[in-house]
Amino acid sequence: MSGYLAIVGLGPGDERYVTREAEDALASADALFGYGAYLDRVPPRPGQARHASDNREEGARADAALRHAAAGGRAAIVSGGDPGVFAMAASVCEAIEHGPEAFRALDIAIVPGITAMLAVAARAGAPLGHDFCALSLSDNLKPWELIERRLDAAADAGFVIALYNPASAARPSGIRDAFALLRGLKPATTPVVIARAIGRPDEHIAIETLASAHPDRTDMSTLIIVGSNATRIIPRNNAVPFVYTPRRAG
Amino acid sequence: MSGYLAIVGLGPGDERYVTREAEDALASADALFGYGAYLDRVPPRPGQARHASDNREEGARADAALRHAAAGGRAAIVSGGDPGVFAMAASVCEAIEHGPEAFRALDIAIVPGITAMLAVAARAGAPLGHDFCALSLSDNLKPWELIERRLDAAADAGFVIALYNPASAARPSGIRDAFALLRGLKPATTPVVIARAIGRPDEHIAIETLASAHPDRTDMSTLIIVGSNATRIIPRNNAVPFVYTPRRAG
Repeated sequence: MSGYLAIVGLGPGDERYVTREAEDALASADALFGYGAYLDRVPPRPGQARHASDNREEGARADAALRHAAAGGRAAIVSGGDPGVFAMAASVCEAIEHGPEAFRALDIAIVPGITAMLAVAARAGAPLGHDFCALSLSDNLKPWELIERRLDAAADAGFVIALYNPASAARPSGIRDAFALLRGLKPATTPVVIARAIGRPDEHIAIETLASAHPDRTDMSTLIIVGSNATRIIPRNNAVPFVYTPRRAG
Repeated sequence: MSGYLAIVGLGPGDERYVTREAEDALASADALFGYGAYLDRVPPRPGQARHASDNREEGARADAALRHAAAGGRAAIVSGGDPGVFAMAASVCEAIEHGPEAFRALDIAIVPGITAMLAVAARAGAPLGHDFCALSLSDNLKPWELIERRLDAAADAGFVIALYNPASAARPSGIRDAFALLRGLKPATTPVVIARAIGRPDEHIAIETLASAHPDRTDMSTLIIVGSNATRIIPRNNAVPFVYTPRRAG
C-alpha cells in the first residue's frame, strides 16, 4: 500500500489565513516536515511526529517526506504562504522526478495558501488589480542578468511587479540594484508598497514612490510591490492611503 | 460614527478554500453584497441582508456597499477567488477615489483569498514554481494590442503565464488568438494546464502542450497556465502528470 503526502500552505504570518482544507490536511497527517518557524505555527497533536529542518534544506526535506509516504505513512510538509510560489511544491516535484519509481506512485495533494503578495496587496488596497508579475530577486538559483532582463520586460510591458526574496544572503544588495534599474525605466512617482512581516505582530507596511523608496530595512520577510504606470495612490482620512491599479489600466 | 466595509475573498469553487479571516468577516456583517453565484456560497444568517447583483455591475455594487457603510452599517462584499486579482477590490478603490469624502473616512478591510491560479497550480503540481505573470485576456477594459504586447514580453523574458478571463463575451476568440501568438514565440512542447471550474463538482483539468492545447471548451470559468521554457511534465503512475517549473529555472 502506498502512502500519502500533503504539501500545505499556511499563508503568511498568523492563523487568520489558514484555510479549512489546510486544517484538515494537517489534522490527518502522522508526521509533519518543515522549516522550524513554520512548524511552530502548527499546534502539537498527540502521536504526530515533527521533523524540523533549516530553511535552505528544501531538497532533503522533500526527500524525507516522500520516503515517509513511500513507507506507507501520512506525511505533511508545512509551508508558509502558498507552497507553489517560490516554495516547497517545486522542490517536491523535483524530488519526485529524480527519485525512485515509488515516488511517482504516491497519492500527493498540494494545498494552496495565501501567498505573501496577496496578503500585502489586501493591506494596501488593490495594487494587483490589473496584469502583474511575481519575480524572485534571489540569485542563488539564477543569474542576476536574467533578473534584470525580467524587470526590464515587466516595466516595459506595463505589468505591476511583486518582488519576493528582495535581500537574499547571496546578494543583499538585490533590492537596491532593482530599484536603481526601475528608476531608469519608470516615473519617479510610481507607487511602491514595502511590507514586512505581514500578518505578524511586528507587521509594517509603507506606501512610497520609486523616488522615496529606501531599501535599507529590507530582509527576507519583506515583500515589495512596484506599481505600473496606471497605479494610483488615494489619500484617506486617519488611515494608510490605498494603492490601486484600475481594471481599465492602459 | 462611520461604518465598516469588508471585501472578502472566498477562493474558487467550494468551501475548502475559505480562510478563518473570511469566515469571521462574513459573520460580523449586517449586509452582504455580491454576484449571485458568490452570495449563494455563503449560508444565510438571521438578520443579515443579501443584495445580489449581476457580474457586470461592479461599479454599482461597490457604490451600494460603500453607501451602506457610510450610513453606519457593516457591509461585506463577497468575491470569488481573491478580491485583489481581477476582482472587486480595485472597483471599490475606484469608487472611493471618485466618490464622496465620507468614503475616504470608512474603516475598510480587504480579506485575501485563494486566487484561481494558485488553486489550479496546486492541482497541477508546481507550474508557478518560478517567476510568473498573471494576465487577463478580457479586452473589455484594454485594447487587444496591449494584451499581445504583454504576452510577447512575458514569453520573451521567460515568465510562466497565467491567463484569466480567456473567453470574454467581447472577444470569445481571445484564447485562440493568444495560443496562436504564443505558438510563434515558444516551443511546441511547452506545457499548458487548462483548468475549468476548479474546486467545483464539475472540475476538469487537462495537461497539454502548446501544440495540443485546444481552446474550444474555454469559458469564463477557465484558467490557463502556459509554462516557461524550463517547465517540465512528470508522468506519474495512476494519476494526472505533474507540471512544475524548477526553482533553478534559467
